[in-house]
Amino acid sequence: MAYSEYNMWLQDGGITPPKVDTKIEERILNHWDNITGDVERGYSGKSLFFKDGNVSYDSTRINDYARFLASIGINRVCCNNVNVTERAAKLITGELLPDIAGLADIFRKYSIRFIIAVDFTSPRLLSGIKTYDPYDDEVIKWWENAAAEVYKHIPDLAGFLVKADSEFRDGPAALGRTQADGANVIARALKPFEGKVYWRCFVYNCVQDWRDTITDRPKAAYDHFFPLDDSFDENVILQIKHGPSDFQVREPNSPLLGAMERTNQAIEFQVTQEYTGQQIDLYALAVQWEEVFSAPVSDTETMRDLMGNKVSAIVAVANTGLDSNWTGHTLAQANLYSFGRFACNPSLTASEVLTEWIDLTFENAPGDAKKTLLEMLIASRYTYEKYTCPLALGWMVNIHHHYGPSPEGYEFSKWGTYHRANHEAIGVDRTEKGTGYTAQYHPHLNKLYSNLETCPEELLLYFHRLPYTHKLKSGKTLLQFIYDTHFEAVEEVETFIKTWESLKPHLPETAYNSVAERLGMQLTNAKEWRDIINTYFHRLTLIPDEQGRKIFK
Amino acid sequence: MAYSEYNMWLQDGGITPPKVDTKIEERILNHWDNITGDVERGYSGKSLFFKDGNVSYDSTRINDYARFLASIGINRVCCNNVNVTERAAKLITGELLPDIAGLADIFRKYSIRFIIAVDFTSPRLLSGIKTYDPYDDEVIKWWENAAAEVYKHIPDLAGFLVKADSEFRDGPAALGRTQADGANVIARALKPFEGKVYWRCFVYNCVQDWRDTITDRPKAAYDHFFPLDDSFDENVILQIKHGPSDFQVREPNSPLLGAMERTNQAIEFQVTQEYTGQQIDLYALAVQWEEVFSAPVSDTETMRDLMGNKVSAIVAVANTGLDSNWTGHTLAQANLYSFGRFACNPSLTASEVLTEWIDLTFENAPGDAKKTLLEMLIASRYTYEKYTCPLALGWMVNIHHHYGPSPEGYEFSKWGTYHRANHEAIGVDRTEKGTGYTAQYHPHLNKLYSNLETCPEELLLYFHRLPYTHKLKSGKTLLQFIYDTHFEAVEEVETFIKTWESLKPHLPETAYNSVAERLGMQLTNAKEWRDIINTYFHRLTLIPDEQGRKIFK
Repeated sequence: MAYSEYNMWLQDGGITPPKVDTKIEERILNHWDNITGDVERGYSGKSLFFKDGNVSYDSTRINDYARFLASIGINRVCCNNVNVTERAAKLITGELLPDIAGLADIFRKYSIRFIIAVDFTSPRLLSGIKTYDPYDDEVIKWWENAAAEVYKHIPDLAGFLVKADSEFRDGPAALGRTQADGANVIARALKPFEGKVYWRCFVYNCVQDWRDTITDRPKAAYDHFFPLDDSFDENVILQIKHGPSDFQVREPNSPLLGAMERTNQAIEFQVTQEYTGQQIDLYALAVQWEEVFSAPVSDTETMRDLMGNKVSAIVAVANTGLDSNWTGHTLAQANLYSFGRFACNPSLTASEVLTEWIDLTFENAPGDAKKTLLEMLIASRYTYEKYTCPLALGWMVNIHHHYGPSPEGYEFSKWGTYHRANHEAIGVDRTEKGTGYTAQYHPHLNKLYSNLETCPEELLLYFHRLPYTHKLKSGKTLLQFIYDTHFEAVEEVETFIKTWESLKPHLPETAYNSVAERLGMQLTNAKEWRDIINTYFHRLTLIPDEQGRKIFK
Repeated sequence: MAYSEYNMWLQDGGITPPKVDTKIEERILNHWDNITGDVERGYSGKSLFFKDGNVSYDSTRINDYARFLASIGINRVCCNNVNVTERAAKLITGELLPDIAGLADIFRKYSIRFIIAVDFTSPRLLSGIKTYDPYDDEVIKWWENAAAEVYKHIPDLAGFLVKADSEFRDGPAALGRTQADGANVIARALKPFEGKVYWRCFVYNCVQDWRDTITDRPKAAYDHFFPLDDSFDENVILQIKHGPSDFQVREPNSPLLGAMERTNQAIEFQVTQEYTGQQIDLYALAVQWEEVFSAPVSDTETMRDLMGNKVSAIVAVANTGLDSNWTGHTLAQANLYSFGRFACNPSLTASEVLTEWIDLTFENAPGDAKKTLLEMLIASRYTYEKYTCPLALGWMVNIHHHYGPSPEGYEFSKWGTYHRANHEAIGVDRTEKGTGYTAQYHPHLNKLYSNLETCPEELLLYFHRLPYTHKLKSGKTLLQFIYDTHFEAVEEVETFIKTWESLKPHLPETAYNSVAERLGMQLTNAKEWRDIINTYFHRLTLIPDEQGRKIFK
């Protein structure tokens, strides 16, 4: 599943794939830590920063953590969840500011500046003001006062992070104001202190009716933000997820990235493995990120070309917690490391980054063992894709917690994520004959994705609705490919287990045992995916597996 | 959908349908109230009895409630949830006993005796004892001491209610002991005080693998308890759900009821509308209960025949809470009233019971209006069945909260509830050619259910796996019947709304408005069911509706 199609496409357009060092000014880690001590989408124990409604931490451990982050190039950290609760909203008030400032002091020693996630409705939530309308004088004044107070405690604060009009969080749209109105009112309050607003673009209709086939969630970010290119203040940065869906295993690049000419942009990744195995299943994100950087965003640019240019900041959601190995799955440490390295230099390859991490982590292992581990890490992304997302067929996942298969889990929900499988066909036509999503891309790229001949096969079901009998380039039918990938994936996980066992003599016992345990859990999960997905499609189609392997009835 | 088949069957067996007054000694209401104040499966506000981890109530309101319960014949009440938390387990210790005894004092004024739900692991949970093994001397002593302490505070306590080895609650099976061993150790401790153990029979494998087609959840209660008929002490009452599944809209009667000759039995109903509309959708349970009493349990008896004989107690899970109208949906009051009336006299008809309730509740309405309301209540059970459970096709419901459709919500879960629909057929064969569930019934009844010609049509998919093209007695195919019932149900809810509007002049404004609001919500729900279920089957089969009505793709 190489990205050969893209390279062909780049050459087609007369472009040589770039291999440049870029300088990305802001390299940011977002923690989704709640002030209760829980971590949203956290798979590594409780929060490093909060407990029972207060700032609470082990300063030795935080020193270690800040030093580590600095060593891989991170220079901005937000400790609190973008889903800001009423209590967490007080992090920018006198009540909690001294405590959070103490935490910022530690990070400052390592040249890491703080960001605080704030609630857009704070003026109403935290004071007697009846509104949070960004045009209201009292609201404007409230943000100014809040900024002044915050900067007294954290004079080098990088800024505020905001999730507004998103997944049941209020924002400017509820009051008939634009996203720019919302971002700018806070940006203007922060400006005297050289602070910025990091404004998330994850705005979409999360109460869609499944019967509505016009609305198409991947179109949302572009539709909401592209028309506002002239409207954002210069100290606003739009924080845009790398793909148009939501950190899925396989997505195209977001057409919004790079599309705006006069707006600061950050690209957002997710190190915590929400949809990518939850630090139970092995998944080397570096492999996917290299693909993201190598893939196009316009008719003349790959994502890599934008980095340090139109895209001046890079963000990821952290995967760390109080677990003694920081990341739950020991090998998930590689994901945090990889993010830092790519943030400094997006022209690195996954192989380079993972080799560095292996050398640093298992320094005493012999070269052969390191090479074996490298191969296993690189394979892990494709194996996981095989059982959870072949041909970009995503969202067949259990609702809410997002682990394990549920073929129709999201099919009739309000989240806008539908595959609409029937007896004959599956997928959503996102070309101009369908929802028109591909038209958000430049013309050549639109054509590339729209044409069944040129659409990268690994993205086939992201863009097209196809019959199960559709022939892939290999000559296999689409359905047989789905069966095959699911059978293969289980075999590959079994191989991981054997490979890991072969490495035992070269690894610290604790690391060996904890990974071995998780690989066992991954095998159970891969079997669940194999059997449920294959049974689902067999029940729908009653087409047997060509090789006669076991599919449950 | 009359029960004419059963009447035919009864006459076949030379039996005249009974119409007798029975005397059921114990008429019990179980509240699933948590000590936090939340109510499990509660749709009428917070708990009447608990708040924030303590006993807490408005004694005026509890007096009203106890008087009402007494007026409809209830003579036993358990206030705390069968899922007993660590805190609630202390209701039988000195820490909380004085408080719960105060509550019991109020009910005693109305001749209602208290039951307390206890945790089977209490000896380990609440003391230094390392086990809860019913054969352990310390455990035996612990229960004896606990009983003595409880009876000091509540001398007329009816007994303890236990949910053990059920849905992740520990029980005797975990220690290799039988259900009888578990029940008897507590029963012996209660015996000196004339107390009883109410031992729930909801024991089944709740971590089933969907790939396992041998295990069949409806068989569980009979398989676990029938072989133990000689083993229970005389002050143990087995509390058996009326159907073998779990308070579904349409089930046969449990083959366990009446099967045991030497064991005391209680039949358990659910007044709170977990699977029957959650006090949003209108559902007159009396109609279903009349059917339950009229339906057979053996070759010579209907359920009604057992009442007051082999089945000496009747239990229901309450539907009340702090809402000002007690039951959320005003018309859901009829369900609590109906339970009390049937508990006193299972030979009443739904029509009689509901007529009484209407006369008492809307005494000033004219006769025509009362008749209209009666017809609407009686229709409500069949309308709800049409959109949620035609032909006993249940469990197509959202997981966990159990409201709204999810055709494959339980399909690959661990709960043992599968329909295994594919492109051609749906349902589980529960005859002796399939899982063998029907063999738990007496021979004549086994034959009745096993034979497609004699199986009551409304239970068809409870017992059989059938192709969508199977012809029903009406000449319709099974699939067309599913489409039709879903279209009809929405029309019927629309009729309910018009009917209710026509009653407006005769009803108190508050009652009118609150029911009107819920009927609007019910209409939305019925449309969701219509569209999702019809789309699900259309996608699977690609067979169109004969009448060409709108089915979403």
